[in-house]
Amino acid sequence: MAQVNIRDDEVDIVIGALHLDLTSFMEDWRAVFSRFHLIIVQDPDLKGDLKIPGGFSFDVYMKSDIESVVGSSSSSVVFSGYSCRYFGYLVSHKKYIISIDDDCIPAKDDKGELIDAVAQHITNLMTPATPFFFNTLYDPFRKGTDFVRGYPFSLRSGVQCGLSCGLWLNLADYDAPTQALKPGQRNSRFVDAVLTVPARAMLPVSGINIGFDRELVGPAMVPAFRLAKEGKFRWETVEDIWSGMCVKVICDHLGYGVKSGLPYVWRNERGNAVESLKKEWEGVKLMEEVVPFFQSMRLSQGAVTAEDCVIEMAAAVKERLEPLDPVFARASEAMVEWVKLWKVVTSRLSNSAA
Amino acid sequence: MAQVNIRDDEVDIVIGALHLDLTSFMEDWRAVFSRFHLIIVQDPDLKGDLKIPGGFSFDVYMKSDIESVVGSSSSSVVFSGYSCRYFGYLVSHKKYIISIDDDCIPAKDDKGELIDAVAQHITNLMTPATPFFFNTLYDPFRKGTDFVRGYPFSLRSGVQCGLSCGLWLNLADYDAPTQALKPGQRNSRFVDAVLTVPARAMLPVSGINIGFDRELVGPAMVPAFRLAKEGKFRWETVEDIWSGMCVKVICDHLGYGVKSGLPYVWRNERGNAVESLKKEWEGVKLMEEVVPFFQSMRLSQGAVTAEDCVIEMAAAVKERLEPLDPVFARASEAMVEWVKLWKVVTSRLSNSAA
Repeated sequence: MAQVNIRDDEVDIVIGALHLDLTSFMEDWRAVFSRFHLIIVQDPDLKGDLKIPGGFSFDVYMKSDIESVVGSSSSSVVFSGYSCRYFGYLVSHKKYIISIDDDCIPAKDDKGELIDAVAQHITNLMTPATPFFFNTLYDPFRKGTDFVRGYPFSLRSGVQCGLSCGLWLNLADYDAPTQALKPGQRNSRFVDAVLTVPARAMLPVSGINIGFDRELVGPAMVPAFRLAKEGKFRWETVEDIWSGMCVKVICDHLGYGVKSGLPYVWRNERGNAVESLKKEWEGVKLMEEVVPFFQSMRLSQGAVTAEDCVIEMAAAVKERLEPLDPVFARASEAMVEWVKLWKVVTSRLSNSAA
Repeated sequence: MAQVNIRDDEVDIVIGALHLDLTSFMEDWRAVFSRFHLIIVQDPDLKGDLKIPGGFSFDVYMKSDIESVVGSSSSSVVFSGYSCRYFGYLVSHKKYIISIDDDCIPAKDDKGELIDAVAQHITNLMTPATPFFFNTLYDPFRKGTDFVRGYPFSLRSGVQCGLSCGLWLNLADYDAPTQALKPGQRNSRFVDAVLTVPARAMLPVSGINIGFDRELVGPAMVPAFRLAKEGKFRWETVEDIWSGMCVKVICDHLGYGVKSGLPYVWRNERGNAVESLKKEWEGVKLMEEVVPFFQSMRLSQGAVTAEDCVIEMAAAVKERLEPLDPVFARASEAMVEWVKLWKVVTSRLSNSAA
C-alpha cells in the first residue's frame, strides 16, 4: 500500500459494543488499535458494565450519555443495536473515523501477514479517488501501478475520498435469505485491490468495516432507516445500506470518491440466519423502492455541504417514499433530526475547544 | 471460475499478425488455442509469408483478401497495424470472439497454474453481468461468492455480457509518457477478480486481451480512430480505446454489461517508449475531447441494434467532434463505412451458409 503519514490525533476508532465482554476483541486488535483513541458506545439496550482490557486510550458512552445529548424523550434518531456506533460518529471531533463490528478480528493477507485495517482505510482516505473514469488496473495511486493507456490526463489528479468500504473474509456480509440458502458458504478469496466505485453507481455499503472522512461526509452517516422488527444481527439491519447510499449520492454531488476493496477483516459467526428470515424480508422488499430512489436522486446546486444534501434528501424521501411505507416517514424525520443534532454537537465541541 | 460449456464452434480466436514468425507465440498458446478455430490476419503492411506451426485449425487473411472485401481504392476503414485484427472480427461468423496481441503469452495465476484465458473470457461472456448496482464482492456468479446484503433482488438475475476486458502481467498497458517516465515499472499484482463496470462509467478498453459477443456488440468493435502518425506499437494506438467506449455506450443503452478483470496474459517487451513520445501526445490530447463526448452520449430509443447505435454515434461525432480536429471527420466516416461493410459481409456469410 502507498505510504501515508497517519497522525494519531486525526483518527477515532468507533466501536459499537453489542456485547459486554470486549476483552478478546480488543486483545486481537491491540497491535492495530492501541496507538489510536477509541470511542466505545455501549448498545443502550445492553445492561451491565463493559469489560475492556487495559492499555488503550478510550472513552465509553452509555445510555445516560446518549440521553444527555439527544434527550430521553422519544426521538426519531435511535441509537440501539448496531446503530449505537452512530453516536460515536456524532461526538467524535477527529477528521477520520474507522469503525469495525465487534465480531470481527484482524484478517491475514494472501502472504499470511496480519492486515492493519486502520492503516489501509487511512491510506484509502488520504490518497485520491477516481470516480469519473474507471481504471482497469484498480487504484492508480498504489505502489507499482498507474493509470492505464487512454485514461484522460485531466482526470489523473483525482478527487478527495469520502468513504472507504472494507470487505470480509470467512463470513461475508450476505443477507438472511442468502445465509439461510447457503449456510456453509464462506468467503476465502483475498482480492488484492482497492477501487473507486464510479460516479452515479450505487453499491451496498456495509457498516461492518468502514472508514470515512468525518469532515467531508460525517453528517451523511445517518442512522435513519430502521426496520420495525430489526434485531441484533447484521443480516437483519439496513441502516448502513441506507446511509451508504446517502454518502454515495452526496459524494457524487460534491465531487468526492467512495472506495471499495481492501482492507479485509475476519468475520466470525453470529446468530441463526433461518430465524432471521422473517424479519429480513421487510428490508429486502423495501430495497426495491430504496435503490431506484437513490439512483435517480439529483441534488440542487444550492446544496454545498453534506448537511445541506441530507436535508434535501430527507425532503425527497418524504415526498417520494413516504406514501409507500411508514418506515420512510421515520427515515425522513431521522435525517432532519440527525443534521440538527450534528450541528448542535459540532458547535458545542468547537466552543469547548476554543 | 464458474463452469460453462464452451462449444468449440461458437468461438473464433482472432490474431492480428504484426510479425511473420508466429511459431513461439502459437506454441506457447497451443494448449489453450488448439481446440478452437483461429482467424489470423496479416498486417497488410507486413511483407512476406507467415510462419505458423502445424496442428491448428486456422484461416489466414492477407492484404489481397482484405482488398477483395473492402476494395483496393482508398477506404476510410483502414486495417493496417494493430487494426488488422478488426478484419477478423468482420469475417468471423461465430458468436464469440477472443483476441490477444501476438506479443502476449499465457500468464500464471497466484498458485502458479497456467491461466486458460479463452475459458475465462467465455465464462465472463456466458455468465450474467450486473451493471445497474455494484457488488462489493465482485462477480456474484463466481463459485463461492454471491450478492452482498442490500443488493436488490430484482437486479440479481443480471443481464447479458457484451465485452470481457482482460488484464496484463509484466508489461502493463500504459501510454508512452507513463512508460517513458517509469521504464522499470512492471505489473506483478494478480488481482483475483472479475467485475462488471457500472452503467454510465467509461473505462479505457485495451484491445490486447479481450473477448466479446459478436452477435451483441460486433458492429461496435470499429477501427475508426487512427492517429495520423500511428505506428506499430500499442502505446501509440487509440483505436481500441475508441471502440471500447463505443461498445460501453452501446451496452449501457441496450442493457448489456461490460466486465473487466480476469483473465491475465503475460505481456512481453516491445519497442522504445521514449521514441514513441512524440506521436503519443496527439492521442493523449485528443482523449480530453473524446472522453467527455462518450460520457455525455445518449442514444435515441430508435436505436435498437449495435448497428443503429454506431450510425447514431457517427453522426454525433461529425457534429460535435469534427470541428475540433480533422481526425474526428475520418473517425465518423469510418464508423458509417464499417457498418456498411458489416452488413454486406454478414449478409454474404448468411447467404453462403443457406
